[in-house]
Amino acid sequence: MGASLGMACRDRGAVGRVIGVARRPEAVSQAEAAGIIDRGTTDLIAGVAQADVIVLASPVRTILQQIKVLSENVRHPCLVLDIGSTKSAIVTAMNDLPDFVQAVGMHPMCGKETRGLEHADADLYVGAPWALVPLPRTTRDSLLVAQQLAISVGARPLVMDAARHDRLVAAISHLPYALATTLVCTAAQVGEQDPLMWQLASSGFRDTSRVAASDVTMMLDILMTNQEPISQLVRQAATNLSHLATLLDSRDEAALRDWLSSARETKLRM
Amino acid sequence: MGASLGMACRDRGAVGRVIGVARRPEAVSQAEAAGIIDRGTTDLIAGVAQADVIVLASPVRTILQQIKVLSENVRHPCLVLDIGSTKSAIVTAMNDLPDFVQAVGMHPMCGKETRGLEHADADLYVGAPWALVPLPRTTRDSLLVAQQLAISVGARPLVMDAARHDRLVAAISHLPYALATTLVCTAAQVGEQDPLMWQLASSGFRDTSRVAASDVTMMLDILMTNQEPISQLVRQAATNLSHLATLLDSRDEAALRDWLSSARETKLRM
Repeated sequence: MGASLGMACRDRGAVGRVIGVARRPEAVSQAEAAGIIDRGTTDLIAGVAQADVIVLASPVRTILQQIKVLSENVRHPCLVLDIGSTKSAIVTAMNDLPDFVQAVGMHPMCGKETRGLEHADADLYVGAPWALVPLPRTTRDSLLVAQQLAISVGARPLVMDAARHDRLVAAISHLPYALATTLVCTAAQVGEQDPLMWQLASSGFRDTSRVAASDVTMMLDILMTNQEPISQLVRQAATNLSHLATLLDSRDEAALRDWLSSARETKLRM
Repeated sequence: MGASLGMACRDRGAVGRVIGVARRPEAVSQAEAAGIIDRGTTDLIAGVAQADVIVLASPVRTILQQIKVLSENVRHPCLVLDIGSTKSAIVTAMNDLPDFVQAVGMHPMCGKETRGLEHADADLYVGAPWALVPLPRTTRDSLLVAQQLAISVGARPLVMDAARHDRLVAAISHLPYALATTLVCTAAQVGEQDPLMWQLASSGFRDTSRVAASDVTMMLDILMTNQEPISQLVRQAATNLSHLATLLDSRDEAALRDWLSSARETKLRM
């Protein structure tokens, strides 16, 4: 996600220079060689020393640690942004940044289940919804910079507060993930009894289970920092699923048709 | 599915002539004009009168009715095949065909959520698993013809009995559909409270919910003719989903990581 953003910013001339910070020196050289960044470093403090805008693009709990490091080490006025997938914990942490540092939480809605520089894509953000979560102390100018960044890489910015963001992404992003892992786990229980199942798997299974391949550390951070809204929706989905089983057992065809038609119409309206 | 099969057979020279039977005269003219069939009719009995091989390609319960019509009206030796999505009810019905009529149940695993001639695709079956379900009285030669048909349109035939087929597709095809409709219904409950949700929906939501757009009559026939295996798996998935909610509530990170990793590894092995 971070490499794609760097690439998109450079390709579109959205910023003067892109300085990349990565943990591994090989990732830095690879990103420089591929033209994803202008130059790079493995040292967060050195990397951000001259930056006007800092974008944190790591799993959520790594971002929380990075905000802490920035809070204690940044000496110049700048704008801190992030593209983490949950926002309440992050904007709370951003509140502890020094007064001369501005901050806006962001969330581009275009995750991939693949990570790494080799999957970087300058067009990843084109047409994607892009949530912007200002802090109470975020200035109008800082919010405008964040909005402009989203627009310049082709995304559609939407401003909202952190609690609302986290509740909505629980439904449209984290619940799909929970259901995809449940599908894979349930099918695996059947496949253990009869491995022929795997040879029959069709496109319907592949699409419905796709996001189960998401990076585990990234998803665990999401689940642990948005636990309450996700848990509540997962229970609601389990209740809905049990209701569907009851309709099946009762062979109540009219009620089943209503359920399926309602799902189809909602899906087609999207 | 039927139009795609006709098109694939003609394009690949798999059969001498393709005669199409449709309910609506406009569909017949459209299919003739598009070169999907050699000629067509709205009369099932007339359409199959000279056919060596008959392929029924309708929703499951319509196929059951068509088998009954064929049982009472077919006067010549021929091979009856179908591409319905459940097999126990269909091969049971096929058993009542006259002795001089051969039959094999089939199920190409490449459903689309779109129907109609305008979506017909001669390459739909390329690489797709294709279940073949012989009757106890199916001859070796008839099974070979069905296998050859699957191979000639690019599919991979797999022979199995009807109960096994229905149990396996409940896991890999009908459960994904049940989960997709549950996702859409649960998200709709959130969207009713806050319609901004729909503007945030991302690719993860779109893919996981894709099959919820499937044709309702087709899916209702599937659910009603494979009710027991599906209901059992839907309950098992609801139990698994509730277990995930319990892991979330307990904030048991090690157990959550195991769940997510196991799902990811299973998905990547597919």
